[in-house]
Amino acid sequence: MSDTVAEVTQVVHAFAECWNRHDMNAFAELFAPDAEFVNVVGLWWKGRDEIKKAHEFTHATLFKNSRLTITDVSVRFPVASVAIARSRWVLEGHVSPEGAPLPPRAGILLIVLARSSGVWSIIDAQNTDIIEGVLSRPQ
Amino acid sequence: MSDTVAEVTQVVHAFAECWNRHDMNAFAELFAPDAEFVNVVGLWWKGRDEIKKAHEFTHATLFKNSRLTITDVSVRFPVASVAIARSRWVLEGHVSPEGAPLPPRAGILLIVLARSSGVWSIIDAQNTDIIEGVLSRPQ
Repeated sequence: MSDTVAEVTQVVHAFAECWNRHDMNAFAELFAPDAEFVNVVGLWWKGRDEIKKAHEFTHATLFKNSRLTITDVSVRFPVASVAIARSRWVLEGHVSPEGAPLPPRAGILLIVLARSSGVWSIIDAQNTDIIEGVLSRPQ
Repeated sequence: MSDTVAEVTQVVHAFAECWNRHDMNAFAELFAPDAEFVNVVGLWWKGRDEIKKAHEFTHATLFKNSRLTITDVSVRFPVASVAIARSRWVLEGHVSPEGAPLPPRAGILLIVLARSSGVWSIIDAQNTDIIEGVLSRPQ
């Protein structure tokens, strides 16, 4: 693995590590100030502060005891200072809004990163749940 | 709107125009040969050929008479030769695998583009359905 692939991969793993510590200060620091994030139900957060507040809320509720596992990371570089990292993940230990335990679910997270002053920051993220056995959204 | 924003926005609108003509040759030409695409249920296509074949199949079946409307496009440039375009969309006229009409659905499409020889091509796309009224995936 090249140094730059390793650096980007480390940010993806840090995403999961901060999630699993439920440390939303450290989580937010992975993002550039003007980063955007679309979650699995299409909520679109604009800026690090919105991303942080949304995750503080879910990590006090639905995701309080959840554990996120990154199962693989694929990294590409359209130019030297921009990276596209796509990861499959599994989430366990999350609960419904009423507090009921939910089964594990899996998804794919796209993260776009930019390198500035030698540091890779997340500038964009979009998350999609995996729904097995269908070509498009069942309704 | 700057020229470069207009150029990128035009590619996003071409995505919908090709979809609505169900012209998967023209659709595929919007993508770079090594583009990747994750659809709303987490199917991960690698390369223009896989993207084309997958859409040829769905446009012969589920999406045969569907119409995709891009309702807004937001464009950012991490560097001059890379663009991140995020769009809200509405899909109508699609059917279930059994051919039954389905109600309109909405989502958010993230497209990453790179400019090469003056032409913007899609190098990555990830799509997420909007599910109203929830913070995370209902189960």
